[in-house]
Amino acid sequence: MYKLTIFSPATIANVSCAFDIMGFSLEGIGDEITFKKSKDPGVKIKMLNHTELSEIPSRNVAGVVAKAMLEVVNPSYGIEIELLKGIKPGSGIGSSAASAAGAAYGMNLILDKPFKTNELVEFAMLGEELASGVKHADNVAPALMGGITLVRNHHPLDLISLPVPEGLSVSVLHPLIEVETKKARKLLKEEVLLTDAVTQWGNIAGLISGLFLSDFDLIGRSMQDVIVEPVRSILIPLFDTIKKTALNSGAIGCGISGSGPSVFAFSNGSETGKKVSETMAEVYKNSGVEYKIYTSGINKDGVKILGVI
Amino acid sequence: MYKLTIFSPATIANVSCAFDIMGFSLEGIGDEITFKKSKDPGVKIKMLNHTELSEIPSRNVAGVVAKAMLEVVNPSYGIEIELLKGIKPGSGIGSSAASAAGAAYGMNLILDKPFKTNELVEFAMLGEELASGVKHADNVAPALMGGITLVRNHHPLDLISLPVPEGLSVSVLHPLIEVETKKARKLLKEEVLLTDAVTQWGNIAGLISGLFLSDFDLIGRSMQDVIVEPVRSILIPLFDTIKKTALNSGAIGCGISGSGPSVFAFSNGSETGKKVSETMAEVYKNSGVEYKIYTSGINKDGVKILGVI
Repeated sequence: MYKLTIFSPATIANVSCAFDIMGFSLEGIGDEITFKKSKDPGVKIKMLNHTELSEIPSRNVAGVVAKAMLEVVNPSYGIEIELLKGIKPGSGIGSSAASAAGAAYGMNLILDKPFKTNELVEFAMLGEELASGVKHADNVAPALMGGITLVRNHHPLDLISLPVPEGLSVSVLHPLIEVETKKARKLLKEEVLLTDAVTQWGNIAGLISGLFLSDFDLIGRSMQDVIVEPVRSILIPLFDTIKKTALNSGAIGCGISGSGPSVFAFSNGSETGKKVSETMAEVYKNSGVEYKIYTSGINKDGVKILGVI
Repeated sequence: MYKLTIFSPATIANVSCAFDIMGFSLEGIGDEITFKKSKDPGVKIKMLNHTELSEIPSRNVAGVVAKAMLEVVNPSYGIEIELLKGIKPGSGIGSSAASAAGAAYGMNLILDKPFKTNELVEFAMLGEELASGVKHADNVAPALMGGITLVRNHHPLDLISLPVPEGLSVSVLHPLIEVETKKARKLLKEEVLLTDAVTQWGNIAGLISGLFLSDFDLIGRSMQDVIVEPVRSILIPLFDTIKKTALNSGAIGCGISGSGPSVFAFSNGSETGKKVSETMAEVYKNSGVEYKIYTSGINKDGVKILGVI
């Protein structure tokens, strides 16, 4: 293998109540990354768009991942990476994770598969650390593994693939404003009420049960986040209206995507999903906030190969 | 129906990390309660053992439940209840819940089934309120429903039956000391670290997933309680030694039963379960603490009828 192009999907982490422990992969939205062997040692990065992002490997999300992997394997060649971003940084749908997970996946292939999935997640987390200051796995793991991933534990990493109920549709509304993950994290209090924590873990247990039972009603009524959403939603224009609108137009649940500003909703079936997306978008259309809107199924495959030479 | 005798099982709530949201029903251990129609109106209680417990209905766990149900239905007859307790109060294996759930179940039958399961749980919670000051459902719900029950939410009550993995065996070590639920609750701090809460709900998500996947290893490694166990375990003689012993002799996980002082362990298969029970008991045998030991499967039926006239 001399040259490889992959697609690495957008992901949604912090699935409502499941803050910091769950994420899932989206269809159609993501980064395209090309890896090419080179005589020159080390990693070179070329940004095909979003040229505001650094091309210095140690300051680039894909770069730090590729560099770390190359240092372990230490091959006789170097790697040139071209990155075409399909996700705006700071959108809350796993922009850094798509680049980091894509880099881990592509590098592993071009290096002849020396690493296992959990190791790829660990490498990809280096990209998340560069982007947000925190080595979290709830975006990179579903990007690499596809579907819905539970991050039971970070140290040691314990990843569980959760079932994807047939017909689960995702609406994503992305207001074109930037919320830095670092800033969104700072809003959170260090301590929470035990009673709130118990409410939250009851809902998490309900959400997981709902996924296993394909019980959309249970999934929906479990999507209540009493800890993070009340704090972070203040950074998202018209969050309460969007959520109410989504639920009124048939969504089973609605929450912040990642640390925002994107908002996602789950629906039962793509028809309802599309309708929910439209009504969510109308809230911004009527208020003059610029936005992007997506309707997607859950991407069961995660990162995939687009072409190999 | 003139007379009815039922068996109401012991239960284990606060299943390790799943504090306040999960409980399950045990086999063989429980209360026997007889209900008899009487010409005299109202509820009469007779304690066949544990006569230290009040026979005044409003001060008796079964009594308050029966009284509340009778007041709603308002039949032309009264009810005499005879209660033979098989569980020592304050044991941590749902002594009050067995009486309360048994009262709710038996009264519903003798009153000709006017209530649904969720309503029976609500009535039974009145008994829990009398015993501990808190209307919690995580013992009475599994006693009434059998198996493993998730209490996703209390208001409104949302109960989900979780799958019981084939071969899941429970060892219960009951030191013959009393820990009042009220006292054990007071030990808990009002606030917890968000990072601890996240660790806890990752484990809860893992535990639920493990039950659905019948993955004993995942169940075991998810049984880590970083919030409640470190505080409450100090009331239980030699807790750390017992837990270590249980795990070393093959248990997949071990935790406090309810608010203690009983300790429970999960094992894969009844053979291992019996061995785990023996080694746990030996810790107390060697230290002179009086105890009872049980090995049980998960009771899938919950409350059951023993006889009807």
